[in-house]
Amino acid sequence: MATIVTTAMSTSPDFPNSSLRARYNGTATEPVVNSTTQRIRETKYRHVFATHSQQRTSCLSADAEKTPSFVGFRNLMILVLLVSNLRLMIENFRKYGVLICIHCHDYRRQDVIYGAVLYLLVPLHLGIAYLIEVAAAKQAISAMERVKKSGEDRDSPEMQERARRSFNMTWRFVAFFHGVNATFNLIIATTVVYYHIHHPGIGTLCELHAVIVWLKTCSYAFTNRDLRHAHLHPNKAQPLPEIYASCPYPKNINFRNMCYFWWAPTLIYQPVYPRTSHIRWGFVFRHALEVVMLSIVIWIASAQYAAPLLQNSLDKMFTLDFVSIAERIMKLSTISVFCWLCGFFALFQSFMNALAEIMRFGDREFYGEWWNVDNIRSYWTTWNKPVTNFMRRHVYSPLVGRGCPPAVAQIIVFFISGVLHELLVGIPTHNVIGVAFAGMMFQIPLIILTDSIQKVRGIDGKVAGNMIFWVSFCLVGQPLAALLYFFAWQAKYGSVSKQWQQSPAASAINFLRR
Amino acid sequence: MATIVTTAMSTSPDFPNSSLRARYNGTATEPVVNSTTQRIRETKYRHVFATHSQQRTSCLSADAEKTPSFVGFRNLMILVLLVSNLRLMIENFRKYGVLICIHCHDYRRQDVIYGAVLYLLVPLHLGIAYLIEVAAAKQAISAMERVKKSGEDRDSPEMQERARRSFNMTWRFVAFFHGVNATFNLIIATTVVYYHIHHPGIGTLCELHAVIVWLKTCSYAFTNRDLRHAHLHPNKAQPLPEIYASCPYPKNINFRNMCYFWWAPTLIYQPVYPRTSHIRWGFVFRHALEVVMLSIVIWIASAQYAAPLLQNSLDKMFTLDFVSIAERIMKLSTISVFCWLCGFFALFQSFMNALAEIMRFGDREFYGEWWNVDNIRSYWTTWNKPVTNFMRRHVYSPLVGRGCPPAVAQIIVFFISGVLHELLVGIPTHNVIGVAFAGMMFQIPLIILTDSIQKVRGIDGKVAGNMIFWVSFCLVGQPLAALLYFFAWQAKYGSVSKQWQQSPAASAINFLRR
Repeated sequence: MATIVTTAMSTSPDFPNSSLRARYNGTATEPVVNSTTQRIRETKYRHVFATHSQQRTSCLSADAEKTPSFVGFRNLMILVLLVSNLRLMIENFRKYGVLICIHCHDYRRQDVIYGAVLYLLVPLHLGIAYLIEVAAAKQAISAMERVKKSGEDRDSPEMQERARRSFNMTWRFVAFFHGVNATFNLIIATTVVYYHIHHPGIGTLCELHAVIVWLKTCSYAFTNRDLRHAHLHPNKAQPLPEIYASCPYPKNINFRNMCYFWWAPTLIYQPVYPRTSHIRWGFVFRHALEVVMLSIVIWIASAQYAAPLLQNSLDKMFTLDFVSIAERIMKLSTISVFCWLCGFFALFQSFMNALAEIMRFGDREFYGEWWNVDNIRSYWTTWNKPVTNFMRRHVYSPLVGRGCPPAVAQIIVFFISGVLHELLVGIPTHNVIGVAFAGMMFQIPLIILTDSIQKVRGIDGKVAGNMIFWVSFCLVGQPLAALLYFFAWQAKYGSVSKQWQQSPAASAINFLRR
Repeated sequence: MATIVTTAMSTSPDFPNSSLRARYNGTATEPVVNSTTQRIRETKYRHVFATHSQQRTSCLSADAEKTPSFVGFRNLMILVLLVSNLRLMIENFRKYGVLICIHCHDYRRQDVIYGAVLYLLVPLHLGIAYLIEVAAAKQAISAMERVKKSGEDRDSPEMQERARRSFNMTWRFVAFFHGVNATFNLIIATTVVYYHIHHPGIGTLCELHAVIVWLKTCSYAFTNRDLRHAHLHPNKAQPLPEIYASCPYPKNINFRNMCYFWWAPTLIYQPVYPRTSHIRWGFVFRHALEVVMLSIVIWIASAQYAAPLLQNSLDKMFTLDFVSIAERIMKLSTISVFCWLCGFFALFQSFMNALAEIMRFGDREFYGEWWNVDNIRSYWTTWNKPVTNFMRRHVYSPLVGRGCPPAVAQIIVFFISGVLHELLVGIPTHNVIGVAFAGMMFQIPLIILTDSIQKVRGIDGKVAGNMIFWVSFCLVGQPLAALLYFFAWQAKYGSVSKQWQQSPAASAINFLRR
């Protein structure tokens, strides 16, 4: 009790505050009767102290000297968010009880079998690509030896022209086989998932695996093409990156190199990657545990909170009650943001780092500070670096290099992304409704918008851009997309499909189709 | 469209980024084919670019070089709060419709009459205090003249002893009259509000007015006592504050000076205050408008959102369903925090500044950055500076000066605060249940707690202290108190008073009383 000393005196101009502050901080050791108290006792006229002795402004006034800090309000926001969501959890529990069911499953045995088969088959295409490259490398080496034996001058214009035509014809063959291989990969996987794997979760994993292998195959083919060309036409003015020197073409075409690429946490092929020295198994274990825990959290959040919410939205969508639909989207947005953030962390931070550690992969920059972006363009180049690196190296850069205007090249990148997103979302849900594709293409006007915002005077362009990003993605975009795909699923498979046929929404959509 | 240039290239180490950045910022004027695009076009092997050329960490990893910024998440928190509360507003509207009724009122004609009468009568006590001081000043002046005429040595020990006894006896008379005057003020107002003014809003305004005048009267009495003593016993070693020099005792005892003190936005009396030069009527108008708008907002928030919530809590309180009560408190806490912040701004920022501007009162420091405090003690000395100044000058400082340990003096300050809070809350609601008083006294263990938190290693003491402050005040303390007083009101006057008699909660309370 004796240590309760008010700091009120310490701010008064007539009293020293150093010893008092020492007491306040608990660093002083003298008894409590300090010099301030002593001074108070020596002052006779305590009731006349001139508290108001100078002009001062209120700290929230416009004419205050300095803007006050609002750190306390950030803490309050965190607390209010926690409390209001805890309340919603209590309300949910009272309404629905425990909806999580560990033992029940709604996937069919057929789903698991097809999924396992695809998991084993899909990587074979990478193996086939490897074999194609082996053949191409052999052909390149034998072509070089023929030229040497013939003794002709390699640098003569005639020889260069023949070499160019020969290379291009070879490349057409190689590209054809690669194209067939990669396309078959995607077609087979897509068909199997669409027609034979009912459960959307298993379907999504299979489709994701197929798309990843497709991208890797393309990268393998393109990179080796350029490496082969550089090998056949050594040109000192165009040196290859130094890091590749330890494994020059065609030494990189070997099974072990291809297997490393298959498992490496990247979509772009390099003969050599920056490597770490050893595997920290503690690191791997920690990150693997994070993946497991976050997956459980996401599963609970979806089953307990998102699922009933989506179910409750169905009848609102039937009757096209837009205010209610908006209210459902707003409620879904909180769960959606939460699951999105957990999922991002689980995949890009925990899983990718664990995989990179096992593979001793040195470049761990899988994402940037995407949450701080002030325009939509930065978001797309920041949140998913593996895909950004692929698009930049194998789509954007070659297109621009061939004279394509950069703006058009960017639109093409978004187009390809849109198609891939639609494959990843529409195929497993068996409803290729084009929402994911449209969402990707809609990024282009959003980029124009956020760019214009930066130039408007009088508002904080960075904060406005960041707010637009969050609203368009996490508060409108994702929950709306989730709702539409869920609704499409229910309309196709759910118990409400009859109800759907007779609803105003169905009539509206049928009318629009005519 | 031509301005859509990806910034992806700008971060690659092999390319210059200055011209590209110029284009990104919209500050460049050359055509889009910039040096970067040109360089891309000159590079032959685009598919072999070494994207992964160095070891890097993920920015959220523990071994990252620097902690990333999380500003984007602050923006997200603001958006999620806005969206979730907007959703609750839609849900409320659907459940209850518009509950605000501009024309209906639930105060009686008698309330208004009594309120008006009190509004006129209460300040009379300040006038009576003024008259008492006039008499005291006259007595002091005539005492001085007697001593001068008698020609005796003022500084002799005998004369000093007689002077001291004479002053103390006079002071006892003066203090007695002041005490009777001030006590009657409070007794009359309290009695009228408790027994005759039904509406708690009008009652609170009257009680607040009475308490403010009571505090001002005390300050007037104490300050003039010390001024009178200093006047009678001039002592160069104890100079009065310089700012008082322009109006020395007893010149300050005049009607105009007392009226200024009556209206000044402060509770402590000074013969002279720091003054501004002129009234900025635009400033006054803006702040008055803020008061009106915020009052309307608070009224809407209470009527539309808080009132139904409180009503819904009643049956939960009857059955002592603690989980539900906790859920209600959590829902109420958001409205409570909102109303608290609006009310604080309306009173301490807008109203006090408007009043200070009209009175040309110079010291506008009515509050500090209380939202950032990291311990409860700082909160109490920061959020309400007029009361803090009063307590410090007229209670804490004199007690410590007389040898009271500072800790005990602080407890006494909280005790007086507790009594005043109970008057302000319990009297207008006609239920002196002691919750407000207990809440004030509970600050003392909270202060001990937050002080101990500062010393715990391993946690951020400032953030923890700030969180404890917010939770104890705005998320638990205020909504719980509001619920209890509302419930007490309903049990006394509401339609549920019979239901209350038969409820388990009533049985529990009756049992505790035996």
